[in-house]
Amino acid sequence: MIKQIKEKRSFLCVGLDADINKIPKHLLELDNPILEFNKQIINATKDYCVAYKPNTAFYESLGSKGWDILEETVKYIPKNIFTIADAKRGDIGNTSDMYAKAFFGACDFDSITASPYMGSDSITPYLKYEGKWVISLALTSNAGAMDFQTKELANGRMLFEEVLTESKKWGSEENLMYVVGATRGELFKKVREIVPNSFLLVPGVGAQGGSLQDVVDFGMTSDCGLLVNSSRGIIYASNGDYFAVKAGEAAKAWWTSILHH
Amino acid sequence: MIKQIKEKRSFLCVGLDADINKIPKHLLELDNPILEFNKQIINATKDYCVAYKPNTAFYESLGSKGWDILEETVKYIPKNIFTIADAKRGDIGNTSDMYAKAFFGACDFDSITASPYMGSDSITPYLKYEGKWVISLALTSNAGAMDFQTKELANGRMLFEEVLTESKKWGSEENLMYVVGATRGELFKKVREIVPNSFLLVPGVGAQGGSLQDVVDFGMTSDCGLLVNSSRGIIYASNGDYFAVKAGEAAKAWWTSILHH
Repeated sequence: MIKQIKEKRSFLCVGLDADINKIPKHLLELDNPILEFNKQIINATKDYCVAYKPNTAFYESLGSKGWDILEETVKYIPKNIFTIADAKRGDIGNTSDMYAKAFFGACDFDSITASPYMGSDSITPYLKYEGKWVISLALTSNAGAMDFQTKELANGRMLFEEVLTESKKWGSEENLMYVVGATRGELFKKVREIVPNSFLLVPGVGAQGGSLQDVVDFGMTSDCGLLVNSSRGIIYASNGDYFAVKAGEAAKAWWTSILHH
Repeated sequence: MIKQIKEKRSFLCVGLDADINKIPKHLLELDNPILEFNKQIINATKDYCVAYKPNTAFYESLGSKGWDILEETVKYIPKNIFTIADAKRGDIGNTSDMYAKAFFGACDFDSITASPYMGSDSITPYLKYEGKWVISLALTSNAGAMDFQTKELANGRMLFEEVLTESKKWGSEENLMYVVGATRGELFKKVREIVPNSFLLVPGVGAQGGSLQDVVDFGMTSDCGLLVNSSRGIIYASNGDYFAVKAGEAAKAWWTSILHH
């Protein structure tokens, strides 16, 4: 992934959150509109991004057909581009093993996002898979992130700092990364004090109001250390006939703004 | 559900965590061994339990076919028995809406388990569905539960107490319940101080070492307020030809032990 980031001079991740109610209407005449939408988006954006991140909820909402579309989408993504199953799973050990089978087996993703609430056995089962990554939630970009993640513990740390401090013992910088939302720019410094080199998956730039400048200033490492995600801003740049061209232009605009940072 | 608990004098929930490697070998000759296994288990246990809880990971690990099996299984469960999608999902608002579509639409479950780490917008989207329930993780039964859930906050509460205190404002006793593991018998008192009447889904009795006596002593309310889950102890009571009979006997033994509490 680092090699790809250097070659493309990009740390953009495109979120493939295809919603049947938001894709261009003319695609609805096709047999498999969502898959066609994803393929065209991938063709148009693949030179500007280093990762794709389908959020599994959008596919699960379609039942078993959605699962097939997810598998086909992952197969269609060029092999040198990193893939993230944004699944936010979290369960006990034997169940996490089943999720690993689902997302590293049935679907061949490079990584999966996971929730740390249930502790070590909700994260470590994924680490057994050579070459695969687990991406633990730490500090998310939504409003509800303030409900628990930023609560102060008796030891003086905020909950997300405790999650980073404990969980980094479970894996390495080669198989464990974290979700840190761009909407908390000022907290990136605290994150980097605990995990100075870990890769961070960063949602929330754009639609949710986070600043790319803050993310770069406070989050970038010598190996980049960032995957900045954009979903709606790119894939729904237009819902006309030329939606793919517009998505490509939006991805290119991102790439250009990244170059200037 | 309360009516059913009174009629059956049972608060048993059977976990339908069917694993192709653990079900009786003779089923493997059939077209759809997991579905057949589930149907026979349901037939044998339905008089002794008030809820069924498939853990979605076991179905997802089979790809789109697994999703079909999950849908068929839910359809097969008698309508008066409560169904729980043990999915432990947790995401931002628009994504939680998609999960609600998946589990209250494509699959017609009565409830879904959800992780509270991302805060209110990971729980509240499910509450819009009339007659449906969301079951938030609070204090789980696994070893990793001690990593974060029992950490003390600056305000003197443990994290799971904070989750209960905050989240109970989001819903009501008619649409929000909690996962509280039986392995933490002594902490049930703390749970009941915060949510005196809420229903609790209780894993961890049996295989994981929790005591049914403690759960009843510290957790029961005047409306029962408990759904105690057993998965492996019932569904894998035997893997011989008469596995379903044995599962029925194991469920009946549970029911008898519940009667004596």
